[in-house]
Formats: sequence, structure tokens, C-alpha cells
Amino acid sequence: MIVVMKAGATKKDRDEVLKRIRELGYKPHVIHGETRDVIGAVGDERGKSVLQSLESMHGVESVVPILQPYKLASKEVKKAPSVIRISEKVSIGGPQIVVMAGPCSVESERQIIETAQAVKAAGAHVLRGGAFKPRTSPYSFQGLEEEGLKLLARARELTGLPFVTEVVNPETAELVAEYADILQIGARNAQNFALLKKVGQLKRPVLLKRGMAMTIQEFLMSAEYVMSEGNQAVMLCERGIRTFETATRNTLDLSAIPVLKERTHLPVVIDPSHGTGNYRYVAPMSLAAVAAGADGLIIEVHPDPEHASSDGPQSLKPAKFAALMARMRAIAEASERTL
Amino acid sequence: MIVVMKAGATKKDRDEVLKRIRELGYKPHVIHGETRDVIGAVGDERGKSVLQSLESMHGVESVVPILQPYKLASKEVKKAPSVIRISEKVSIGGPQIVVMAGPCSVESERQIIETAQAVKAAGAHVLRGGAFKPRTSPYSFQGLEEEGLKLLARARELTGLPFVTEVVNPETAELVAEYADILQIGARNAQNFALLKKVGQLKRPVLLKRGMAMTIQEFLMSAEYVMSEGNQAVMLCERGIRTFETATRNTLDLSAIPVLKERTHLPVVIDPSHGTGNYRYVAPMSLAAVAAGADGLIIEVHPDPEHASSDGPQSLKPAKFAALMARMRAIAEASERTL
Amino acid sequence: MIVVMKAGATKKDRDEVLKRIRELGYKPHVIHGETRDVIGAVGDERGKSVLQSLESMHGVESVVPILQPYKLASKEVKKAPSVIRISEKVSIGGPQIVVMAGPCSVESERQIIETAQAVKAAGAHVLRGGAFKPRTSPYSFQGLEEEGLKLLARARELTGLPFVTEVVNPETAELVAEYADILQIGARNAQNFALLKKVGQLKRPVLLKRGMAMTIQEFLMSAEYVMSEGNQAVMLCERGIRTFETATRNTLDLSAIPVLKERTHLPVVIDPSHGTGNYRYVAPMSLAAVAAGADGLIIEVHPDPEHASSDGPQSLKPAKFAALMARMRAIAEASERTL
Amino acid sequence: MIVVMKAGATKKDRDEVLKRIRELGYKPHVIHGETRDVIGAVGDERGKSVLQSLESMHGVESVVPILQPYKLASKEVKKAPSVIRISEKVSIGGPQIVVMAGPCSVESERQIIETAQAVKAAGAHVLRGGAFKPRTSPYSFQGLEEEGLKLLARARELTGLPFVTEVVNPETAELVAEYADILQIGARNAQNFALLKKVGQLKRPVLLKRGMAMTIQEFLMSAEYVMSEGNQAVMLCERGIRTFETATRNTLDLSAIPVLKERTHLPVVIDPSHGTGNYRYVAPMSLAAVAAGADGLIIEVHPDPEHASSDGPQSLKPAKFAALMARMRAIAEASERTL
Repeated sequence: MIVVMKAGATKKDRDEVLKRIRELGYKPHVIHGETRDVIGAVGDERGKSVLQSLESMHGVESVVPILQPYKLASKEVKKAPSVIRISEKVSIGGPQIVVMAGPCSVESERQIIETAQAVKAAGAHVLRGGAFKPRTSPYSFQGLEEEGLKLLARARELTGLPFVTEVVNPETAELVAEYADILQIGARNAQNFALLKKVGQLKRPVLLKRGMAMTIQEFLMSAEYVMSEGNQAVMLCERGIRTFETATRNTLDLSAIPVLKERTHLPVVIDPSHGTGNYRYVAPMSLAAVAAGADGLIIEVHPDPEHASSDGPQSLKPAKFAALMARMRAIAEASERTL
Repeated sequence: MIVVMKAGATKKDRDEVLKRIRELGYKPHVIHGETRDVIGAVGDERGKSVLQSLESMHGVESVVPILQPYKLASKEVKKAPSVIRISEKVSIGGPQIVVMAGPCSVESERQIIETAQAVKAAGAHVLRGGAFKPRTSPYSFQGLEEEGLKLLARARELTGLPFVTEVVNPETAELVAEYADILQIGARNAQNFALLKKVGQLKRPVLLKRGMAMTIQEFLMSAEYVMSEGNQAVMLCERGIRTFETATRNTLDLSAIPVLKERTHLPVVIDPSHGTGNYRYVAPMSLAAVAAGADGLIIEVHPDPEHASSDGPQSLKPAKFAALMARMRAIAEASERTL
Repeated sequence: MIVVMKAGATKKDRDEVLKRIRELGYKPHVIHGETRDVIGAVGDERGKSVLQSLESMHGVESVVPILQPYKLASKEVKKAPSVIRISEKVSIGGPQIVVMAGPCSVESERQIIETAQAVKAAGAHVLRGGAFKPRTSPYSFQGLEEEGLKLLARARELTGLPFVTEVVNPETAELVAEYADILQIGARNAQNFALLKKVGQLKRPVLLKRGMAMTIQEFLMSAEYVMSEGNQAVMLCERGIRTFETATRNTLDLSAIPVLKERTHLPVVIDPSHGTGNYRYVAPMSLAAVAAGADGLIIEVHPDPEHASSDGPQSLKPAKFAALMARMRAIAEASERTL
Repeated sequence: MIVVMKAGATKKDRDEVLKRIRELGYKPHVIHGETRDVIGAVGDERGKSVLQSLESMHGVESVVPILQPYKLASKEVKKAPSVIRISEKVSIGGPQIVVMAGPCSVESERQIIETAQAVKAAGAHVLRGGAFKPRTSPYSFQGLEEEGLKLLARARELTGLPFVTEVVNPETAELVAEYADILQIGARNAQNFALLKKVGQLKRPVLLKRGMAMTIQEFLMSAEYVMSEGNQAVMLCERGIRTFETATRNTLDLSAIPVLKERTHLPVVIDPSHGTGNYRYVAPMSLAAVAAGADGLIIEVHPDPEHASSDGPQSLKPAKFAALMARMRAIAEASERTL
């Protein structure tokens, strides 16, 4: 932590800051500048947001953190990439790029089984489908709930595909974990700390989506919440951030891939469907994600998007998805990975 | 809902769209333009996000919603401003501007009682203080929990001030409601729909904070979630949105006041403490909020911000808060309101 | 400037950085941390963006600037607020709040003279009106150019109001300066450095608008461009920044007022018309600006907004403007200023 | 254009709107909704921003444009992709992906020639280098100006590489055009309409960078400015937009590639150097750009980034650039293009 003193700060101001730094268990170190002093506070600043309160002291201009505030998620703690086992056959974080595909919502037995078979045939590794749906409007379809979980389990039985589905409430998290292979935390719950703690206590891999206005650092802090409860199997999913641009539903931040790869050992998944909100842009963004080094993709596929009860405009039809799989495979090979 | 067809769409494309609009229970109405057709779908489009899926149809360029998707929160349903009763003496939404003040977190009996007495003496109407704290880091102070609620109740007993405190989990919402006069939903939970539904079932006024990347329309949809469960006593709190600017912690969007006043009957509260993140900017933004027509303010006050366990940099000392109250009163009077 | 070394940086890495810091004329100062070193580079870092290139060195994680990069605009150079003389009777930056009002574009003699007389009668101090118009579309009305300047001069003659008008091109800047009392730099030209240098060489006060995606620091750097050429008479105008919110055309960042007041001696002007893009929100935002401490306002007024050739939706009619002036005066008085 | 009436609008309000629509030369068409009417105004709305002023009329809630406001840049006017000839050997917009590489600024003869030879050897097609530099600070290096142009011409002579360099002022645009093969308009001048018109009158291809807070639609309107003056040879360059994220200098919006490909026939170029601001992220973002369908890339390469006078942190060394070229070639081939 670096404390920047004001240009006109007095010796007394500085001494008070030095005293307070020592009280908090840090070693202060003064650098006398030409117009002002800066003070380094040496010690592990993580979890010590209280240091920030030095900004209230007389003569202090600002407090600048130096260390990243996460530990378990950081490469300093674990250098090698984490490989997370999803099922007997599927792991993520190694050379194999994992594709998760399926509808936004489970709507009926026929719909989910037909989609599961289609995405399996195209080479997808994991089925996706929402049973508990967080919808912006209370008047929109809220999901089939436990019935949806049962249909997903039935589709798994028939196709062998493990499935990922969303958890929206600590009260129903255990129920979801009884059925699902991967627990998804949605973008709107990315800082729902009660929910993060809850899935941290369950024994299922977690697909954590980045919040719409979440910095990379906050994203890693949310992963840290899950990990600090004991669950290390966290996948980080970039799904578009909110910006001024309205040509796409969100702005898919693919540079999050190299930034995360530099900072964390956790696998990185890209969601081009929510990231663009438009099926016409899903293919190019999927190919770009593979080229940029993503470990996985999660793509919305629906047999009949015109009649989908949610997210129709961003869903691919099965034939388009199969064509995309072939193109992604070519890019993966050119990148010395498999898919 | 307006469906914009592509320039090259065929008659067949158009007929399919017309058919689908009728199937969904709407009356289509075609306008033939010079380069393309647009089709109006007449009927109540609220809760019908399924209409959006028309975007997947052949020949369709885009689907443009016309109506606001909220009902209970809208002025179309209720024209007169809602006045919400907080305690025997305090109501919000009328000519009286309500000031809520206190520390970010309840830290000790002495701290909360001292603060309660100070803000009461300065003329505040409601005490604020966090017992369950949603912190970005799992290693930061997470609040005193039920012990904190008891201390807040003790402060209420001594000062007569009702209090507002945050709810973070559906599992503990009822516990909080046993103690608190107002239930706060924090910015990070503003689209935690499970929590919104839960507080919608409780009999306590709700202070709903705007999420960091939430549009005004989404903000009203979150209020609608609470209201659609039966609880009409919702206060809308603007607390800064996330933008590219880093000189302030968030960008306080005061224009949300007139925009909300135009669209909803619910009272509007401003949080200049989180909105700026810096005690030096709290006074000017509070005065601006009063002049712009806010119904209430929520301001962080701490007797010793340098030692606060959270949000020290944005907390006012009691003397500064008292001085601010006097200046706000002058602006309120010049605006023909009381404070 | 603080150089943060990586956790695994070697002694050799550090020695190279120390050597390079010395070569650039700074004095390095090492703080040995628990997991990494940080190095302070003592010396005036302003104008030395070359220091940032240390980030390319082996073992360096990041380079954190400490000083603000502006000089002439800063309070360190000039503590007292700058009072800028606009005409014999009008100055800005003192206790008097200055109101500039008029149409977006000069359209005809009748329109500009009628408006000038109306805003004068309501108590405005300066007339505004565009002669050279920077329009997003090449097919939109581009302004009356020199003819517009002549009409503005005619309106000044009749009413005694000095006028502000926009400069869009270094090639026509001198022509505009022959007529105008204040030269406006628009938001889209806020980092058009060729234009900033040009108006820095002219002897007219400059109203510099903040760019749509400009940080406060960059805003002050643009002022510094004008000042470094010799023209110290710069007014800073906040006119809304671009965010994700679409309920308003821009997000008016009123917290820029206290932030700028803390950092610079230059007067601060608010533009609620462009800041909101909607006449219905202009009055509350104007009142808020006065309460927050603005030194001036610039407000669009048009006698017939439904027929305006630009910016009709955000223009006030003369009667509404007069009513607003009365309300602003009450807030100014409650704030111990005049208007 | 669609005019949405308020719920309570009267027949008189509506008749006034209908009359005004007719006056402006459009044909109105009313759709009677359940709670409100909407009125379509049929006719070419481009260049008619005056229609927006209907928002000021009594009873009108909002005005929603339907058509895109650009013509020459649109696919409606020209369906086939534009192929722009840069030199005898190099064209952009066809199957060949064009790589432009070189330093941010021309600093010396040795530096630019050494770099030109290195990027040529690695397979780059165009040399980049700044002679007139738009710098945020007036105290930073402003470029070698005409001397820089001469050095670029000398490098072209030696290597055969055409070069791109920035134009910052209408007054020096012709001078730059005497030397350069491509005229670059920088992000900060992307809505400097005087400059856009000027390069529209010159006979050199233009590389137009997207402004930091520019929507895709505004970006195309800036291209339209150049094209409407007669110069159709415009390349659109995405170089990162400004968002809340600070882990990268800007957020590179790769989804701009498919969005632009859908709307315009102009070639699309990606700048991963400014887009990320960090040499460590340049390679993955370059590969992603190729996979997503970019027609060109512009990449900063410097022989000695630690000593660069600008943009050192985002420049690649020649060896890293050569390695990247090989990887991009593999992705290009997998995408059925050449590089």
C-alpha cells in the first residue's frame, strides 16, 4: 500500500500516518519527493481494507493499493493451470477445449432431449439448460424448476453429456447440486456473496459468470469467495460487460482471456451468446475466443429459436452449431489445441 | 412492439411474421415504408419477452419495444406520489425530505449509540448501520450479524430513531425484518431476484439500491419484483453508477431523480456517500440532490472514520454532518420543502 | 512515479530498473516488501511519459504515476480561484453565477434576436448560439457560418449581451475570434490538440467542453494545452459523459464540480441541456448545479423548439427559462451566491 | 421514424403531430394501440434530424428512428466488399489480410529504418509510424513532423513498404498526403468533422480510427463524412473503447468486426496495441482478430520499447512480432484467408 501525502502536509500529519500504519501491523517507509512525500506500508495488505481508511487522515491525498487482494485464485499461490474434472470423460483447463451447449431454458422433455442429441452429435462435451431462471421481469417465464432438473438428468442419461445449470438461491442450491454436474452462478448474482459462500460448501464444480460491471479484480474476488469456503473447482466465464455500445447486447471482453491467464490458474470460459445477444455474431466471436486461448465455450442452441421462451435472438439452430464446431476445430488445431 | 423488416425481406417473410404475431395474441399492423416495412404488434407487450424472439425470424432486422415493461411501479397505474410510512413520526414521499444517517457497519455498542445520538441531534430522521455486510473480499469484516441488529435496536430505543439495515440472504431476511424498520437491498443484490421476492413477502418498507450497471428501466423492474409479491412500500435509491471515471468511486447520476419522478410514483433517495466514495464530495452532492428534488438522503457518518472497519474514506464526522444539515435545510426551504 | 516489481523479479532486473531511472534523471528509492519490491522514482514526473516505458522492462509489473500531470491548471501553481472577465459587466469565477443562454444554432435574424431579447429579459448574462456546427451527420444542417457570427454580433448590439460560439477548425478560429466574446471548444474536439493550441494563441476566453469519454484528469490536460500557449482564460464545462444509461442522452456528472474545485483554480460551468438531452430534465439539473457550486450554466433556449433545426428536444421555451431563472436565483441565495 | 404518443395524449395532440409530419414531407401512418398510439412517418429519414424535434411536441413521449443514418457506407448502397488499393502490391478488403507494423512515433532515421526492415522481414505489408503526434500532454514529445515524414519516405524507398501516418490538422493534411500512402485519423479526432472533410477531399486512402466513446453507428457516420466529400477509400479501425475496466488501457471490441461486416462494405482493421495497451496481450488479441474476420491489423513494433518516446508498454520487439506473424498465418489459413 502506498500512501500519497498532500503537497502541503505537515510533519505532524506525516507522523500521525506513520503511527497509524504501525498500529495496523505494517512497517512504514517514507520516500521524500520534491513536492510531497509518499509512504510505503510494507506487509500483507490483503484482507486489510481498513488501510484504505487512512484516506480520511489529515494531510493524506490518496491511498494506492499495490498487491492484488486475492490469494487462492492467484498464480502466486498456484503456478500451474488448474485442470477441473467435470465427468469421467470431460475435464477443463488442459489442451482440450470444452464446449457446453444447449438452450437458455429447459422448456419441455422433447425440446431438451432433441437439443441434447443434436449438440452431442455435433461434438459438444457438456449440455447447458436453465431450470431456475433469473429473469429481469417478474412477468417473464421463471423456469420449470425441479421438473427442469429432472429433464436435464434424463437428457444426460440418454446422451452421456454432463450438464451445467444455474443456481439462484442458497435455499435451493443443494437441490440443484443433487442433479447437476456444474453449478452456474449468473452474472446478476456474481456478487451475491451469500450464494457464493453456499456453492463454496458444495462438492460440484462452479461456472462463475462475470458481472456486467465487474472488473477483472472483482471477478477474481468472487472466485476467492467460493474457494475460501473449500471449493477450488471454479471456472471463470466472461459473458460480456456493459458499455455505451448498443449494437450488441453486451460488449464481449475477449482481452479478459489473456488478462485472466496472467493472473490466475483457473480455466476461462467464453459465452458468445450472452456476450453479443445476437446469433449472427456468435460464430465469429466463438472462433476468436478459441484463437485467444479460451479453455471452454458455452453456446446457446435451440431447435426452434423463433418459439423459444427466452433468449431466442441469440440462439443458434443445431445445423449452424454443427458448422461452427467444425470451424472451431480448425482454429483449435491451428492453435495446437484439440476440440 | 415494432418489428422492423430488412430492406430485402420477401412477402413470405412478412406473412410468417404476421402469422406469428397473431399466434402470440397480438394484432399486427403493417406500415409500408420506402425501403422496408415495419409492423406494429398491438396488445399489452409487458411480460411478453417472447415477442423478442421474432428477431430470429427470416427477414426481420430488429424488434423495438414501445411500452415500459413495469406496471405497479408506473405512473400509469398510480398517478399520485406514494407516501411511505416508516415510523409513527417519519414518512417519505411528501414535502418532508427524510435524512438517514449513520455508519457503514455497526462495530460496537459505543460506536453505534454515539453516532445515533449525534445524527439525531443534527436532525436526522432515520439511523443507518450495517449488521450483515456484503464485502467484495471474503477476508474483510463481514459484520456483527444478529448482534449488530440488537445494537441497532438498542440505539433506536435510546434515540427514537427508526433504522435501516441491509438484507443479504433470503435465509436471514425474516430475522432482519424482526428488528429493522426498513430493509435495504444493496447494489450488488439489485438483481438477486430470489432476495427481491423474499422482501416482497415481508411487511417492512424496502430501500432498493440501484445496481452499478443498471438502467433506470431495470431498476424499476427490480422494484416491480418486490411489488408484485405484495409489498408496495419501495424506496428507490440512486447510489452511483459505474463509468470510466475514476476520480470518484462511482458516478452519482442525479438526473435519475427527474427521470424516476416522471416514470414512477415511488420516492427517490440519494446516497452521496457511496455515490462519490469521498467525504470531501458528500456535502456538494447532498445539496445538489435536495435541489434536484430528492425525497430522501442516506449519508454515512462515523465518529472516527480513520478507524472505521469499512468505508472510512467516505464517512463524515458528526460535526461536518451537522453543518451539512443546516445547509441542506436552506436549500430545502428555497425549494419549498422541509427537512 | 512508483515502479512495482513482479514477485519473482531478480536482483539483476531491479538493478536494470534503478539504472534506467537514474538515466532519465530521477532518484530511485527502493522499498523491500514481503513478496515484492516497489521503487519510488523521485523527481518531477510531469511531461515525462517516457517513465511509463519502464513497464516494458523485465521483472516490472506496473508503473503507477503519483503526481497529476498538469501544472498551469493546478491549484499547486495558483491557489486562488481564477476570475475571468468576459465583458465590461460580466466576469465568471467570483460570487456571481453566470448564465449563458440561447439556441443551439443561429437560424435566422429573427430567431436569434427574439431569443437574445427573451433571455436578456429573464436575466441571462451571456448569449449562446452556434454558427459553425459540428454535426454527427454530414447531411444535417452545418450552421450559417460567418453569416451566423454577424447575426450574433447584431444581437449583442441590440441587447448588450456578450456571446459565446463554437470554433471547429484552426483555419477559421481567427475569424470567429473577431466576432465572439467567448470561444467554445465542443465535446468532440476536446482532444483536438491542433485546435486547442490555436485558441491558446488567441486573446479570447475559452469555454472548454469535456469530451464524452474524458476523465477529469484528461480534461485538465486539455485546459493545460490552451494555457501552455499563453491563454489562461479557460472555463471548464461539464456537459454529460457517455455511460450505459439511455434514459438520458448523456449522464451529467455533477460530481465533476467538487472534484474540479479541489484540483483547479479555473471556473466550472454546467451544461444541463446536452447533459440530459431532454428539456424536461433541464430545470432540476440546473438547480442541482447551482447547489453543488457551479460558477456558470449554459442552457439551450429556443422560441420554437418543435421547429428547431438542431437540438429541439433539449431546448427550453423562453417562459420556462424565465421561471427557471427565478428558481435558480432562490437556490443561489440559499448558497450565499448571486445570480 | 416512429413517434410514440403518451398514454394520455389527446386527439388534438395527435392531429398536430400528423400535421407537422406532413409539413416535413413525410407520410404519417397511425397505429392505434391499447394504451397509446404510435405514428409511423414514412419517407427517407436520413439527414432529417429535424424529425427528432417532434419530441418537443405536446403529447409526444419519444421519437424512435428506424433507418440507419448513413448511405454511402452502407451495404444497401454497395453490397460487395470494397477492396482498397494501397500500393501496387498491397490491397485490403479481399482474401489477403494486411498487416501494418512499426513504431508509435518516428524517433530517428536508425530507429525507423531498422524497424521497417524487421517488420518487412517478418512479412508485414505496410509500415506505420507517427510524425505528427496527438499527445494527451502538451509537455510530451509531439513528433518530428515533416522530418518524420521524410524518414518514413526513406524507409519506404529502402524496403518497398508503403506507410500509414497520422493527420492531425487540416492545415498540414496536404503536406502529409504528399508523403504518405495512407492517412490515419486518430481516435481523438474521429469526430473532428473539419479534418474528416479535409481528408475526404484528398486522394489517399484513409484509416479511420474509432473514437473511444463512439458507437458503431457514429463510427459509420464519420466514415460517411469522408465519403460524402468524394473519397471512398476508407478503412475502419477498431482500437478499443473506453469502459470501466482498468486491467487493459481500453476494451478491444472485437464484436465490432461482425457488426461492421453486416452493415458496411468497408474493410475492417484491428489495433490490438492501443486496444489493450500492454504488449503481453497483443498476440492473443491479434490471433482473435484474424479468427473473427478482420481484414487487417495495425501493430506497434519497436526495436527498444524500454527507451521508446511513446507507447513503449504496448510495443512488441521485432522477434516477438515475427513469431506472432507465423501464428497469425496459421489462423488465417484455418480461416481460409492468406496473410
